[in-house]
Amino acid sequence: MRVLTIGEIMMRFQPQNYERFAQAKTYDMCFGGGEANVAVSLAQFGVDARFCSKLPENPMADACINQLRGFGVNTEFIARGGERMGIYFCEKGASQRPSKVVYDRAHSAITAISDKDVDFKDMLDGVNWLHFSGITPALGEKPAAFLIAVLIEAKKKGITVSCDLNYRNKLWSREQANLVMTKLMQYVDVLISNEEDVYDVFGIQAANSSIAGGKLSAADYAGVAKQVAAKFNLKKVAFTLRESISASENNWSGVLFSDGGVYEAKKYNLKIVDRIGGGDSFAAGLIYAILNNYGCKEAIDFAVAASALKHSVPGDFNLVTVDEVKKLAGGDGSGRVQR
Amino acid sequence: MRVLTIGEIMMRFQPQNYERFAQAKTYDMCFGGGEANVAVSLAQFGVDARFCSKLPENPMADACINQLRGFGVNTEFIARGGERMGIYFCEKGASQRPSKVVYDRAHSAITAISDKDVDFKDMLDGVNWLHFSGITPALGEKPAAFLIAVLIEAKKKGITVSCDLNYRNKLWSREQANLVMTKLMQYVDVLISNEEDVYDVFGIQAANSSIAGGKLSAADYAGVAKQVAAKFNLKKVAFTLRESISASENNWSGVLFSDGGVYEAKKYNLKIVDRIGGGDSFAAGLIYAILNNYGCKEAIDFAVAASALKHSVPGDFNLVTVDEVKKLAGGDGSGRVQR
Amino acid sequence: MRVLTIGEIMMRFQPQNYERFAQAKTYDMCFGGGEANVAVSLAQFGVDARFCSKLPENPMADACINQLRGFGVNTEFIARGGERMGIYFCEKGASQRPSKVVYDRAHSAITAISDKDVDFKDMLDGVNWLHFSGITPALGEKPAAFLIAVLIEAKKKGITVSCDLNYRNKLWSREQANLVMTKLMQYVDVLISNEEDVYDVFGIQAANSSIAGGKLSAADYAGVAKQVAAKFNLKKVAFTLRESISASENNWSGVLFSDGGVYEAKKYNLKIVDRIGGGDSFAAGLIYAILNNYGCKEAIDFAVAASALKHSVPGDFNLVTVDEVKKLAGGDGSGRVQR
Amino acid sequence: MRVLTIGEIMMRFQPQNYERFAQAKTYDMCFGGGEANVAVSLAQFGVDARFCSKLPENPMADACINQLRGFGVNTEFIARGGERMGIYFCEKGASQRPSKVVYDRAHSAITAISDKDVDFKDMLDGVNWLHFSGITPALGEKPAAFLIAVLIEAKKKGITVSCDLNYRNKLWSREQANLVMTKLMQYVDVLISNEEDVYDVFGIQAANSSIAGGKLSAADYAGVAKQVAAKFNLKKVAFTLRESISASENNWSGVLFSDGGVYEAKKYNLKIVDRIGGGDSFAAGLIYAILNNYGCKEAIDFAVAASALKHSVPGDFNLVTVDEVKKLAGGDGSGRVQR
Amino acid sequence: MRVLTIGEIMMRFQPQNYERFAQAKTYDMCFGGGEANVAVSLAQFGVDARFCSKLPENPMADACINQLRGFGVNTEFIARGGERMGIYFCEKGASQRPSKVVYDRAHSAITAISDKDVDFKDMLDGVNWLHFSGITPALGEKPAAFLIAVLIEAKKKGITVSCDLNYRNKLWSREQANLVMTKLMQYVDVLISNEEDVYDVFGIQAANSSIAGGKLSAADYAGVAKQVAAKFNLKKVAFTLRESISASENNWSGVLFSDGGVYEAKKYNLKIVDRIGGGDSFAAGLIYAILNNYGCKEAIDFAVAASALKHSVPGDFNLVTVDEVKKLAGGDGSGRVQR
Amino acid sequence: MRVLTIGEIMMRFQPQNYERFAQAKTYDMCFGGGEANVAVSLAQFGVDARFCSKLPENPMADACINQLRGFGVNTEFIARGGERMGIYFCEKGASQRPSKVVYDRAHSAITAISDKDVDFKDMLDGVNWLHFSGITPALGEKPAAFLIAVLIEAKKKGITVSCDLNYRNKLWSREQANLVMTKLMQYVDVLISNEEDVYDVFGIQAANSSIAGGKLSAADYAGVAKQVAAKFNLKKVAFTLRESISASENNWSGVLFSDGGVYEAKKYNLKIVDRIGGGDSFAAGLIYAILNNYGCKEAIDFAVAASALKHSVPGDFNLVTVDEVKKLAGGDGSGRVQR
Repeated sequence: MRVLTIGEIMMRFQPQNYERFAQAKTYDMCFGGGEANVAVSLAQFGVDARFCSKLPENPMADACINQLRGFGVNTEFIARGGERMGIYFCEKGASQRPSKVVYDRAHSAITAISDKDVDFKDMLDGVNWLHFSGITPALGEKPAAFLIAVLIEAKKKGITVSCDLNYRNKLWSREQANLVMTKLMQYVDVLISNEEDVYDVFGIQAANSSIAGGKLSAADYAGVAKQVAAKFNLKKVAFTLRESISASENNWSGVLFSDGGVYEAKKYNLKIVDRIGGGDSFAAGLIYAILNNYGCKEAIDFAVAASALKHSVPGDFNLVTVDEVKKLAGGDGSGRVQR
Repeated sequence: MRVLTIGEIMMRFQPQNYERFAQAKTYDMCFGGGEANVAVSLAQFGVDARFCSKLPENPMADACINQLRGFGVNTEFIARGGERMGIYFCEKGASQRPSKVVYDRAHSAITAISDKDVDFKDMLDGVNWLHFSGITPALGEKPAAFLIAVLIEAKKKGITVSCDLNYRNKLWSREQANLVMTKLMQYVDVLISNEEDVYDVFGIQAANSSIAGGKLSAADYAGVAKQVAAKFNLKKVAFTLRESISASENNWSGVLFSDGGVYEAKKYNLKIVDRIGGGDSFAAGLIYAILNNYGCKEAIDFAVAASALKHSVPGDFNLVTVDEVKKLAGGDGSGRVQR
Repeated sequence: MRVLTIGEIMMRFQPQNYERFAQAKTYDMCFGGGEANVAVSLAQFGVDARFCSKLPENPMADACINQLRGFGVNTEFIARGGERMGIYFCEKGASQRPSKVVYDRAHSAITAISDKDVDFKDMLDGVNWLHFSGITPALGEKPAAFLIAVLIEAKKKGITVSCDLNYRNKLWSREQANLVMTKLMQYVDVLISNEEDVYDVFGIQAANSSIAGGKLSAADYAGVAKQVAAKFNLKKVAFTLRESISASENNWSGVLFSDGGVYEAKKYNLKIVDRIGGGDSFAAGLIYAILNNYGCKEAIDFAVAASALKHSVPGDFNLVTVDEVKKLAGGDGSGRVQR
Repeated sequence: MRVLTIGEIMMRFQPQNYERFAQAKTYDMCFGGGEANVAVSLAQFGVDARFCSKLPENPMADACINQLRGFGVNTEFIARGGERMGIYFCEKGASQRPSKVVYDRAHSAITAISDKDVDFKDMLDGVNWLHFSGITPALGEKPAAFLIAVLIEAKKKGITVSCDLNYRNKLWSREQANLVMTKLMQYVDVLISNEEDVYDVFGIQAANSSIAGGKLSAADYAGVAKQVAAKFNLKKVAFTLRESISASENNWSGVLFSDGGVYEAKKYNLKIVDRIGGGDSFAAGLIYAILNNYGCKEAIDFAVAASALKHSVPGDFNLVTVDEVKKLAGGDGSGRVQR
Repeated sequence: MRVLTIGEIMMRFQPQNYERFAQAKTYDMCFGGGEANVAVSLAQFGVDARFCSKLPENPMADACINQLRGFGVNTEFIARGGERMGIYFCEKGASQRPSKVVYDRAHSAITAISDKDVDFKDMLDGVNWLHFSGITPALGEKPAAFLIAVLIEAKKKGITVSCDLNYRNKLWSREQANLVMTKLMQYVDVLISNEEDVYDVFGIQAANSSIAGGKLSAADYAGVAKQVAAKFNLKKVAFTLRESISASENNWSGVLFSDGGVYEAKKYNLKIVDRIGGGDSFAAGLIYAILNNYGCKEAIDFAVAASALKHSVPGDFNLVTVDEVKKLAGGDGSGRVQR
Repeated sequence: MRVLTIGEIMMRFQPQNYERFAQAKTYDMCFGGGEANVAVSLAQFGVDARFCSKLPENPMADACINQLRGFGVNTEFIARGGERMGIYFCEKGASQRPSKVVYDRAHSAITAISDKDVDFKDMLDGVNWLHFSGITPALGEKPAAFLIAVLIEAKKKGITVSCDLNYRNKLWSREQANLVMTKLMQYVDVLISNEEDVYDVFGIQAANSSIAGGKLSAADYAGVAKQVAAKFNLKKVAFTLRESISASENNWSGVLFSDGGVYEAKKYNLKIVDRIGGGDSFAAGLIYAILNNYGCKEAIDFAVAASALKHSVPGDFNLVTVDEVKKLAGGDGSGRVQR
């Protein structure tokens, strides 16, 4: 199994413990970005994951590539050059205080990526699955054009394509997102999203929903999924279901819609260590499960268990194994010490 | 709007993470003290806050003043001189193990403060509100005398005065506190306290109360507030309502009594990062709200939301903005990541 | 009161915060081991605790002995020599992700301990109580033989003997454990265990139990305890009751069986800082209580309160005082700040 | 005395200890930038220092302003707005391995500064001295135009102007620098530089010099200074003299040329803690000394002693007092403990 | 061999790395004080060292006693009670910037010590040597009186007494010191000091000396030592010789005067990790050497080598063994890795 | 170019800063081992480096492999299995106090390596150079036998073989080393060593040498090298020349003997950050230079410059590039900041 993901990877700087930006003198640094997170997670699952991006020629980007390679990701298709590496600052919240992300990613190397930066033939060789998120086309015209060029080739080769909608209002407007994402949907087989993003990008909404606070009704998702699947002729649509009790505690689940069936996963009550990358780890879990021909219920359970575990791992990357995910999906969430 | 607070500021030394004193080799240091905390919080809200105190001529006190000034507090009325800077040690508790505070504040510079240390006229110039807590007079005869001298001038100028009762049994006996605080009450317009302190200092008690454990009945507070308000002719009395589930989890709310009305705030379930300074952040929130002519319900909601957020911020100071408080008071306590 | 414990003490290396082994560059190091943990806890309670073990001649072992002595443990009966000091690595879990312990304790100094390493007469002089766990005999034939030799002498002197069953499947098989532990039971007066270990070692099981997930029925333990007590002619049998909600949250209690009576302790909901050593702190609490002639209900309440507090203290050792335990056992688990 | 400095301030991220970028997971963060460093140093000397710049509306910039204000700098003339805050990464060298600085400052807020961002009249009110470095005009056309506009006003008001040449080849070519700096020299009274920059920017060179390795001959500087002073009609020219023995050890001195006189300072052998900002602390020392009417020899001794101390202080800022500088300039460089 | 030392032990708080007080948010904490340092060093040498002092009843003092006991010091004669524990703040210098010590030790527990706090008979039982420094009597009348009372008893028992002059001008004037120390000299057999303190306290001075900067001439010490020895009828006088090149580098040696002979030790060039406690480690080395009947040259070589090593160990305590000292005194100062 | 190295890699645990083992609560962890260090350094130089070893199936070994792979080393030939991972503890020295290494490597996985663990054909495919050190055969009979088996195959394929003598007296006696290393010399083309090891293992000695202290005469090495080269028919012999001034400062150089010529490198004065792995980085530099057909003088200069830089990099690995080495070898050791 070989999976290709395409997107940006950034430096993440985060004050330690629960310090606010106003207090921080020391920052933890890790690397992260939606599609890179998916690649790393898949590599931990034993998948031959390759990550395509563009990074400048500087020692921080070198360190980033080293780390990806260390985690088993194929980094041959990360082009080098361009102006700078994207950065994001993350202040970790607690209780009623939300985490705060400040992006400093404009002008990053990937915004100038072109089809001359990598050899499409090599890059797609033997690839079974291609994954991207809505962030990549939102980064600018060049990344969007690059992505479409790759997708055209991918579809010619019969590669399955998944897309995580991932709407970011700091990067583009709803109108822009709608225009571009609608165009991209023709190449997509599996759509991953949440209720909010589907509404923001495609204007499709559940009957009754209250995202910020209350309990989400899984039933309402069926209608949304059906509409989206029908509109874009999608094979599968998966939603993450997050109930935000506070910055320290969430309930977490997911639903998968496939061929008319609705499959809902077990719900987990999460004490949060790091929720950044939660959605990406869900995508990686789902891709792994489908690639391994899991049944639909089994697949959504695996994806939700994988991403539940992510919330306990610091950093963007979901550093857990298939065995660990299976143990949780199999029902053992007791957290008893393993000796 | 210009607010003056008068009191002591100390160095706080705290073992890292959840280490006990017996284990600590490295300590986090921050500055804190009831009235300073109020001034810093008000400065974050955009108020012109000035803090009056006395600190010795040494580099730790210099660092303290730098930090206050950095957070926007006017430090011109911090006199310099005296023997030492007060210190307190704080061991952070968790679950059933309580946090432990050990004071080392005797002989600190402020215990020798006198009316020659600052120019009252300058200090009170343009001031709308003066705040102190029961700790200041408890520090010794000189701080008590100094405080009264300032209060007399303040009342002449029609400055609103608030007092946080803040009884500390390590500093004085109930009898001493009763004697002095009763005398000070004549200058006070707004009293801030909790059930326990009102009982310790004034002997006024709710019918049914169980502080250490169970749920606090807000209704019982009405009687207490009425008694206190009547006895000291107070405009407003505000109580914080803390239900201590454990050192890691509290419920938190507050009530405001004003002109016969009883206004109770929303209750928050808090996962605690740092609860030192919780009461001070409530006082700051209340002062801000009243100064800005919030309605009573809106005011207590603002004060409680502000102080709920404080419990998620390490250190004594409540480093949150008016927008953040309003967002929470407005109902969004979901802690969802802000991008 | 003088208590002797016999066992191994190791270095524990743990990644900081919630980092996985794959991420760690810096490790917190502490010392720990079942019987050493009991000795340290007893020393904090003011008991004259001595710890018998064997450690190599190297500076890490010197540091370990220094630390034990610092916490008030008599270290005269720690023989020096042998190949290496045992090590264990501990990755702290959170939420649904369990903590992970990797042992590297083979070939440690204690595996070659012999009766020539310490003077039994000196070591047992004035001793009222001897404690060991099932780990010590599991370490190898020599520690097992050494232990039996000491137990024979101890029983001659009328010393009370307690054993914490502590089954470790990485060290020996159920069959081996059954063989050796059955033999050792003849010297034991007080057995400390949990449901799982009693089943693994002696094959004795409660009617209905589900360890990993659900609620444990205390009633079921009565039958188990009766069987064990009868089979080995034990004075007392105590069980810890742990309900693992997640790696971050447990419910914790215990039951004591004595002369036909069943005494169940209050149950605590624990937010976990460090659960390693929880069982050892329970053993120490129970030994202390029995040595001080507490009644059975009082004893189990003390043991459970002591070990509840342990879960809030980082490291293996339960660094709490008798006063702190009594305060919690007396009902104050509110975690309110102590000033 | 009131001094205004104009320039950029950035976040500096530095791996801890001597880690290379390839190893770093945690970064120390401080703020720094040539003209800000001068302002902070002057504020420590008791000067009324104001810093003019532009920073975006984000919490990192807020923290920066807080810190400047904390150190006593007037921050009223820092305009808010623009895209991002400049960043630089610094890997600290040792022995033969040089420190490595990677800039990520393009598109920063100050590159879009305009005369509408601040009120020139207010900003220059009461100002005695204006300082800038060659970095500010190198940042782009807008900062260069802004600077010139301020300089024109400043000269009208008779304000003394100093310029630290500070050539950065990553920001502009020698040709660009020559063009712009030559134009700016008409406003400058005091030029601060080193041999290398004078050559790079103005093509003026000492007869015999070897910057990278050997000893610098102070005598050679006389000729260089004379040429520069004559060409641009400068009152004073000051050079820092750095002999780089290794990244861990430098010799450090300076020379001042004034009205035909050549004044050379004492030379210090420095064990380096942090050499970033060394030149800025020299500029601050010189400005302070001239503003306080020190004699030329005394002035260059003060400037060199101040900047010698800077090399022992972590971060960009020279956090030393006038007394500390005077003590060293007075001959006590023994480093004996001060109790 | 049993040695008793009498004095104060404090908490030391030190900013990390080379941070100034103005920058520090995290402090390293260790315990230290002249006579405690001597006791700890002697305990590392295998001597039965007991330390007499007074500390308050609080958890920081508990931690201090734990640590002393851990390092093998007998802590039975540390009385408990009194107001507070002394604290000192230490900012570590580098290069030309000196370390800065700020004391906060007034009102500490030992200032109220009395002969009722310890049992003199028990404390002096089996003691061969008693050591104190000039700090103890400088702490106040009560410590001075206590010390004299102990010295009287010690001399009755024929215990050898050493005194480290250790003049602290923050604690008393030269006149006070002269008065009290002169009185105490009648009990002293071995005086340890440096040139500066002998002058400050007794007004005895070498012909040519320049402490702050230049090289110290060992020859000049002979005259000083003879005068002191003659005046107070001392058996031995030892001087440490420190040449302060900078805060990062010192030369270090010592001379011993005994029965007319002058014995000078090898001189070491020290790269300084921590020079606090350097003199104390010299005293401990000398006491050890004399107690073990080393020849005079061997003794001063041991003392200087021991204290040279101290400068490489962080904290007040000299945690080195006799073997390590002997290796260095024997000529191996190459610092080659020991495997 | 493809290089294979064979040996052990361990976890290294080191107290932070200059703490002694007796003080450490937190340890820095890195991975290291002679041949792994060579492979990592070569990979930084752009060489296709593969490392053959054996590591257990546990998460620490996983992390080790991740890190090697991250640094670009081919890890396919690291067999998995066996008992444990070797560990070494390193206490960093300073000034006269030497660094102290305590090994805990017995019973490690590699001690049971066999020719069934890897496919020799695959492993040697395309390999130009094979490197090992004297540590690998010293680890036990199985590693020694494995090594010989690989060497026989390597020589058949005409692969150049280098050996770093690296005598470790904790692992075997001089007699054992002599026996085994003599046997291995038949396969070796390039011998890397220092004076001390050549004497310890082969009894070959320079006329006048004093390793611990004084200056080493390079001339004396010529005789030693000639003897060794003649005895074992070696193409090249290279010696590192270390003058240990103290643990903080060394002089460092090297000599290469080739076809009768003697080539001595420039000498560097090193301020030491981390000297572990210094010899390994020299070996890597030499291998790189010879593989790239550098002239003999150029080769030894490159090797010495590379290893000089290593002493400034924390950890075992020499994370420097060819450009950085060339810059230093080319004469620029001034350590000036690179912007």
